[in-house]
Amino acid sequence: MSDTPSDIGPQATAPQAATARTTVADYLLRRLRELDVEHLFGVPGDYNLGFLDQVTAFPGLDWVGTCNELDAAYAADGYARLRGAAALVTTFGVGELSAVNGVAGAYAERVPVVAVTGMPATEVAASGRPVHHTLMDGEYGHFGRMFAEVTVARADLTAENAPAEIDRVLRAMWRERRPVHLNLPTDVVPAQVSPPTGPLIVPDEATDPGLLREFLTGCARMLDGARGVTVLAGHEAERFGLRGPLAGLLAAAPVRSAVFSSGKGVLDETAPGFVGPYTGEISDKRARAAVEDADCLILVGAPVSDSVTGGFSHHFAPERTIELRPGRASAGRGVFEGIAMADAVGGLAGLLRDLGLPEPEGYGEPFAYPDEAPGARLTQRQLWSAVGSFLPEGSVLVAEQGTAFYGAQEVPLPVDGRFVGQPLWGSIGYTLPATLGTELAAPDRRSVLVIGDGSLQLTAQELGTMTRYGAAPVVVVVNNDGYTVERAIHGATASYNDIAAWDYTALPAAFGAGPGTVAVRVETPAELADALALAARTPDELVLIEAVLPREDAPELLTALAQRFAEQNAYGD
Amino acid sequence: MSDTPSDIGPQATAPQAATARTTVADYLLRRLRELDVEHLFGVPGDYNLGFLDQVTAFPGLDWVGTCNELDAAYAADGYARLRGAAALVTTFGVGELSAVNGVAGAYAERVPVVAVTGMPATEVAASGRPVHHTLMDGEYGHFGRMFAEVTVARADLTAENAPAEIDRVLRAMWRERRPVHLNLPTDVVPAQVSPPTGPLIVPDEATDPGLLREFLTGCARMLDGARGVTVLAGHEAERFGLRGPLAGLLAAAPVRSAVFSSGKGVLDETAPGFVGPYTGEISDKRARAAVEDADCLILVGAPVSDSVTGGFSHHFAPERTIELRPGRASAGRGVFEGIAMADAVGGLAGLLRDLGLPEPEGYGEPFAYPDEAPGARLTQRQLWSAVGSFLPEGSVLVAEQGTAFYGAQEVPLPVDGRFVGQPLWGSIGYTLPATLGTELAAPDRRSVLVIGDGSLQLTAQELGTMTRYGAAPVVVVVNNDGYTVERAIHGATASYNDIAAWDYTALPAAFGAGPGTVAVRVETPAELADALALAARTPDELVLIEAVLPREDAPELLTALAQRFAEQNAYGD
Repeated sequence: MSDTPSDIGPQATAPQAATARTTVADYLLRRLRELDVEHLFGVPGDYNLGFLDQVTAFPGLDWVGTCNELDAAYAADGYARLRGAAALVTTFGVGELSAVNGVAGAYAERVPVVAVTGMPATEVAASGRPVHHTLMDGEYGHFGRMFAEVTVARADLTAENAPAEIDRVLRAMWRERRPVHLNLPTDVVPAQVSPPTGPLIVPDEATDPGLLREFLTGCARMLDGARGVTVLAGHEAERFGLRGPLAGLLAAAPVRSAVFSSGKGVLDETAPGFVGPYTGEISDKRARAAVEDADCLILVGAPVSDSVTGGFSHHFAPERTIELRPGRASAGRGVFEGIAMADAVGGLAGLLRDLGLPEPEGYGEPFAYPDEAPGARLTQRQLWSAVGSFLPEGSVLVAEQGTAFYGAQEVPLPVDGRFVGQPLWGSIGYTLPATLGTELAAPDRRSVLVIGDGSLQLTAQELGTMTRYGAAPVVVVVNNDGYTVERAIHGATASYNDIAAWDYTALPAAFGAGPGTVAVRVETPAELADALALAARTPDELVLIEAVLPREDAPELLTALAQRFAEQNAYGD
Repeated sequence: MSDTPSDIGPQATAPQAATARTTVADYLLRRLRELDVEHLFGVPGDYNLGFLDQVTAFPGLDWVGTCNELDAAYAADGYARLRGAAALVTTFGVGELSAVNGVAGAYAERVPVVAVTGMPATEVAASGRPVHHTLMDGEYGHFGRMFAEVTVARADLTAENAPAEIDRVLRAMWRERRPVHLNLPTDVVPAQVSPPTGPLIVPDEATDPGLLREFLTGCARMLDGARGVTVLAGHEAERFGLRGPLAGLLAAAPVRSAVFSSGKGVLDETAPGFVGPYTGEISDKRARAAVEDADCLILVGAPVSDSVTGGFSHHFAPERTIELRPGRASAGRGVFEGIAMADAVGGLAGLLRDLGLPEPEGYGEPFAYPDEAPGARLTQRQLWSAVGSFLPEGSVLVAEQGTAFYGAQEVPLPVDGRFVGQPLWGSIGYTLPATLGTELAAPDRRSVLVIGDGSLQLTAQELGTMTRYGAAPVVVVVNNDGYTVERAIHGATASYNDIAAWDYTALPAAFGAGPGTVAVRVETPAELADALALAARTPDELVLIEAVLPREDAPELLTALAQRFAEQNAYGD
């Protein structure tokens, strides 16, 4: 079975209508289970309550009610990054529009999330009646059109089209690794349809061997005589499941490896060739040399953006660059459409194995965080040094856009570590609910969130939701008195970059977190070390650490990038 | 000067370009001051920092930074309801999409809010570069198109079109009393333009006297012989400034008056003819008789929706109904386009004055809250009785959609009282930030918010923002352990209607509220009375009262309406 829409239209399912024996809701939930979804995130509303009845009754699925819908969308995004896919359930209008920024973020960063909107009954919508949660203009299509701008597929489900449309939309989500949208009217939820008869996702067909050979011939020419080869991976490598294939490629020969900040976590950062993050001209010298001076640079799922390239200050020589993107590969000037990234990576591993590359200078020098002697007051450098030392094997480092994200870039992940951040969309507040998602998606990996005070204030209430559903992350709140990332770009002392002075350690209890929850405030490296030691001893509880830092102490990478952003915005200072 | 776009195009301002002497930002801010806007709500982001420099430097304007953008939109909506207009400032993509649900609510409920999006520089957008806060597809038009769905006018500002486009868009906002959207690129903010040369808003031309006479002749025929006349007002009456004209009409003759829940606050509830809220078949007997048995019913700015009519269970006899809507009036079957509501109300007052109507039965019986003897535990009825007695003259009762909104309907407002709720859009969480807005818009009126626990959890963090900017409302949190409104519709004991058990009285301090802030928990009528007495004694401090109520105790009006909604959604139970 192919996953193109034309093959799965209504005609394919119509013959089975006579033996209908499940509901539309059940059909959708079965398909979500096939995608390894075990939790649905959202907020109840009167147009989705019937669907929630079926969610809560469905074996192997749990409902996770967040405080608001944007937080649910963020949580779903975080969940999908660890699980492969996620689902969000809101009510019409008020709910879905609250969530739409989170859905747009999933689009920008290629995260497969299905947003299910509980809609008024088909007959009500058809009548155009002015019911609550509409714009009172009789038009029920506004919000679907808004979702069309930030999704790769969407459908208005009916009793007749539901199986085919659910499959078409979910397959598009998977194929593109982007969000999709389903409108599910209250009366369609219990409508009878045939259950699924085949798998939702069939493995991609292998790349045409002739095409792959042609591409690899081009690569071989570029690699001929090369002595220094570097792999640079971005977020698409992670989303399209290339962690294993890339590890194979890096094991095949002594190549160097680096990541865009968007791709942090997809490569083994303890491997001998790993040189750290590459961020254009503002990169550390070693990473910059590895990428820019390579005889051959292999870009894997690494599209550029201002935030990952230090404001487009990257230098890639096209004639020395092999680039893999979803469904498309290029070797120098030659472009090959229809090549799966995994197949290309596998082929390149073979080429590199045969090449007999010499070990480059510095190969084997570990990617390590530069130490700084602990002082009386905590600094950004000391914070990151401590967090890096703390990260347990297999843990998930989640870093909020701003000082946290750029600070985290320089911290090596532990063995089998994961990283979650949002450098492309960059919606502040994202990571706290996303950490609820990563914790539920991968309960065996501890999530360690580092988030600034300004960002925390957008979505803080999900701290209560975490303990309610058994999530036990470590949450480091960087209290530096406002929007430090904005201060770095413009308005260093402007009042608009100030925020309310919260009592951060009082939050978990106020939000009803369990009695075992830990919340401590630290101002010195020694206090931070104690707090992290406590976190290590309490793996089953949420641990919140408020780390007090100087107001304008920012990671060097952030300061340099902020200057580039200010120039891009034509701010004079 | 007319306010149609064709009259204010670039040709009108072009001749003055040679004497340019202000900036686009300054031009916009001057226009906002003309609309009586003194506060701008929003969140800083790197594409709006240059604009915020100008906002904070502008005499008579204050920046109000909220914790997140949706809350800013809600605050702007609340502000506009008391002030007449409001402005919201966000950054591109992440910020504006977080706010869009609040903008849609302003559309549904006819609230004039301008949403200003700080955009990437013109040249950056034109290049299609993949910068942060875009979808990474080179397309900068997605979010503008999304805003087009929920606004009545929008513009992408340039150095050339800014004065004309700002005026066109703000005039549409005012004319329609609906939200509008402006994209303001970073480089356009400081661009030089001519300052405004005439007023933004000119008074509406009076209705054509011949047309008005024709309409009133039709009305006179309907009123001929009428003995019982009733005025029913909705939210458009409030938004289009009819409080004064309506008071004149009600003083002209002994007519009865009622409001849709959407129009609560536009009529004097202490006036002799006021019979309370009309909600179709689920109304109280007196209000139902006054509206449905009137010899002539005068609907003023009162469009129907399911939530204000008990699920479309209203009964209006067209041949006995005069209806006024913005720009259109009807008398029985006769429809007259182009009649201003205020002119029609004035004309009707004259007709009624001449009619010699007899006093209807029960005229002068006050609209009063039915008393219930205080018991050991607090009930919904006792809560509302106490809140009603507490409301100071001129205060603003803000009631969250759900139990609070429908409970509030039966509570008479004090002299010169105001009411804010959101029955049409019905986005839970709206009222807490909206109360920040009403407090800043009308500091001489105390805002009294009643909100359920489930709703509070969506947007609670703005409690800290309130005291930061000197707002001192009374906030009554109804703690009834979950989404009671949803329980009433469907899933009375379903887990998805549960919420985390917060410590509500701990919130203000955790959110950094000032040291004078009061936070108390009450479980009995006596404790509530004490708390409200304390609130009365501390008018300059935020007072939070957590009122513990039984889980499924709901106002009768809500219970009846919820049943209608369940039927509309085809839920079986």
